[in-house]
Amino acid sequence: MKKTLIALGALSLSITPTLAQSNVPISLGAAADAALEGDEIAWNFVEGITTEVGPRQAGTEAEARARDWAMDWLDANGFANVANESFEMDTWVPGDVHRASVVAPYVQNLVVQPLGNSAATPEGGLEAEIVFFPTLDDLIAAPDGSLAGKIVYISHEMRPSMDGSHYGYYGGARFRGPGIAASKGAAAIVIKSIGTDEHRNPHTGTTRFPDGVAAIPAAAMSVPDAQNLERMFERAGDTPMTLNLELNPRRLGMTLSGNVVGEIVGSNPDLPPVLLACHIDSWWNAPGAFDDGAGCGIIAAAALNVSKTGQPLRTVRVLFAGAEEVGLWGSRAYSAAHIDEPIAVGLESDFGADRIWRFESNFRDTNPDLHIKIAKSIARYGVANSTIRASGGADLNISRDQKGAIIDLQQDGSRYFDLHHTPDDTLDKIDKNQLRQNVAVWTQVVGILANEPLPILTGGVKPSAPATMEQ
Amino acid sequence: MKKTLIALGALSLSITPTLAQSNVPISLGAAADAALEGDEIAWNFVEGITTEVGPRQAGTEAEARARDWAMDWLDANGFANVANESFEMDTWVPGDVHRASVVAPYVQNLVVQPLGNSAATPEGGLEAEIVFFPTLDDLIAAPDGSLAGKIVYISHEMRPSMDGSHYGYYGGARFRGPGIAASKGAAAIVIKSIGTDEHRNPHTGTTRFPDGVAAIPAAAMSVPDAQNLERMFERAGDTPMTLNLELNPRRLGMTLSGNVVGEIVGSNPDLPPVLLACHIDSWWNAPGAFDDGAGCGIIAAAALNVSKTGQPLRTVRVLFAGAEEVGLWGSRAYSAAHIDEPIAVGLESDFGADRIWRFESNFRDTNPDLHIKIAKSIARYGVANSTIRASGGADLNISRDQKGAIIDLQQDGSRYFDLHHTPDDTLDKIDKNQLRQNVAVWTQVVGILANEPLPILTGGVKPSAPATMEQ
Repeated sequence: MKKTLIALGALSLSITPTLAQSNVPISLGAAADAALEGDEIAWNFVEGITTEVGPRQAGTEAEARARDWAMDWLDANGFANVANESFEMDTWVPGDVHRASVVAPYVQNLVVQPLGNSAATPEGGLEAEIVFFPTLDDLIAAPDGSLAGKIVYISHEMRPSMDGSHYGYYGGARFRGPGIAASKGAAAIVIKSIGTDEHRNPHTGTTRFPDGVAAIPAAAMSVPDAQNLERMFERAGDTPMTLNLELNPRRLGMTLSGNVVGEIVGSNPDLPPVLLACHIDSWWNAPGAFDDGAGCGIIAAAALNVSKTGQPLRTVRVLFAGAEEVGLWGSRAYSAAHIDEPIAVGLESDFGADRIWRFESNFRDTNPDLHIKIAKSIARYGVANSTIRASGGADLNISRDQKGAIIDLQQDGSRYFDLHHTPDDTLDKIDKNQLRQNVAVWTQVVGILANEPLPILTGGVKPSAPATMEQ
Repeated sequence: MKKTLIALGALSLSITPTLAQSNVPISLGAAADAALEGDEIAWNFVEGITTEVGPRQAGTEAEARARDWAMDWLDANGFANVANESFEMDTWVPGDVHRASVVAPYVQNLVVQPLGNSAATPEGGLEAEIVFFPTLDDLIAAPDGSLAGKIVYISHEMRPSMDGSHYGYYGGARFRGPGIAASKGAAAIVIKSIGTDEHRNPHTGTTRFPDGVAAIPAAAMSVPDAQNLERMFERAGDTPMTLNLELNPRRLGMTLSGNVVGEIVGSNPDLPPVLLACHIDSWWNAPGAFDDGAGCGIIAAAALNVSKTGQPLRTVRVLFAGAEEVGLWGSRAYSAAHIDEPIAVGLESDFGADRIWRFESNFRDTNPDLHIKIAKSIARYGVANSTIRASGGADLNISRDQKGAIIDLQQDGSRYFDLHHTPDDTLDKIDKNQLRQNVAVWTQVVGILANEPLPILTGGVKPSAPATMEQ
């Protein structure tokens, strides 16, 4: 009881307005605890970008508006060296006609949206028999040429999972299905949305056509519509089903995108910076609250909170990568441009806004003291230590390319695939308390990293010492 | 314990396949219990109509397909005297362009759908300042003419409630808001959807313009989009907000709709029939599972289950009313055509598919024995007795016009306004166990009514006897 009272005392002290507004640095622990209690920075970012910008499809003027907005926000919040690092990309846009109708033996409109890189149908739609494949493997097993002129439909049984692992397991229907269907001669493809919700909002996302295989029209159908279509297949029995599909996406060719960066400058310019990454683009169909407005808000809030504890040793750099959704263009461009500038450690937030439950690094064996120090520091926020080797997210190409240190702060993804790439990825889905837990954990972790004087990946001290904490 | 075992024994007997498939009539209680355990009839209906027909906007060919489908279903399931009773109606259709974009000071598309009876905008959209009214009362308080050329926006704070009472409280923004805005000179109106969900699916519904007031474009905005718009108003401060709204609904003039009826014929043709009502039309934007495919399935299943207990004394008639959503055209036509044919009692199912929790009649005082008999018979399904006087639903105009007996079997509406009039009103939302509880309660109640030899409303025996059950 006494311990609790002391902790509460320390906590309330840390958020006393007079102290918070003063220039007296607060301790890192107090800054992190204050974020848990009442962070408004991350919310301010994600509320702002979803409200004042909204959807921001990569390579378009909407993404450019998002960059401008983000740079203004970083400037207004005291970041240094705020910049837009431009790069060129091959841009696809979705168009505005996204229609699917079963026309025989029943008549009913179904809700679809195109997948990224989908080709367009003829105006008025492409009308053909639609053939049912329960899984991607069933499509793979179809004889070459057997689908000539037909529309392929692929189902799946994705379920929510905390670590999002079902996305990898079932996502192939989207990643690879269209290319496989096209290579077998299909005229078009519709997949059951790679998602776990029950709302009439399709889950888009990028698909890839192999070299030499021409793109075909490819769409995601909302989960309830896909279930309805499957009931039609069941009721139709041997009677062929005919679908009319109309999509008008198009390629714009090369356009400009950009990576937005900003810094909390460290006191020792000789030490490589700590890199915090997220992505600023979203799909056209949603304001991108979970994916990834929240992530950018979390990392920016953590950087600012660390600055409140006094100038860090290392520079903390935020990277709001451009054009992640459509093929990691920003992450690749950043790595290419900065490959010769050593990064101390990279971390990314890009899995929504629900609580962090697990900590992973790729230096647990080589720098166990630092790994354990970090793990211990965030155990109070309900974050478990892990033996899993961190590999980083989509926007950390530079850390992988440099074979540098990486930390993954794994978020609870149970709700993530309800919202991922759908119109429903809106601000109201964010649980402010869970968002604050993210900021608290990030503040604590980034604060330790930014004040670490020794190299992070190797540590150089006890490379093979065993971990002493429970897993 | 012993009692439970006996009850379980009776229950398993009632669903023994050999017995269920035989022609030996089962008891009413057993028929109702069997429905609770495993009814498939209501599901078969709602699964069928949502899959094979889908959306069925009143007065259109889609509603005609629904009538044909329903008549085939009634015929196939052994109903007698299946018929389509046609009537003429003034038909509005939604068109296919439903767009709203904030164009200043921010730029963002928002999801809208037209309200029934909305006028069209010019092609390319109507662009005007949008003005914020927190409630309908705030709009009412605006000076006449003060809104000339502007687009009105009305918000509200609707919350889920078991009895749906918040719909009446807040629904005025939809029922009356557009007419009031038009009468004050507004160019158009957008309302926050009258709904309780958080998905990007607007809730449509009928609005009315007073005589002499020309219709204006009127749309419902999804709840997340409305919240986003309100955050824009907040961030814009004194800067005017401009909206571009494009809708292309149109009036078709007079077209044909119809009421579908079917009967389980009773043994005594001198006794007035029991009327079970639902509506067969839905809005164009959803396959109408909750509203009201489920209701038609429930009443049809109850009628069939009663027939399994032997031929009833009274005829049980199902009425699948046409054109309910757009102004009770079918209910009014049915009353006009049948006003001179006495109906013994009317009941309607039109509030989704969740469990029935309360029983109300309008003969509790005049025929207390029957009221109590019914109340006692469904207490085992968790249905409470009530002193509230039943008034019937939208499709029971005839019972009200005849001042006849009415029963309301109130359903739990906690989820109803998540789905009501939105694209999300799909089959997957139906909880099969709750649907079966509905069928069980209806079977029990209809079975009692169909075998009641005395007049139902007055009873004529103890008109003022006090009720003896707890409320």
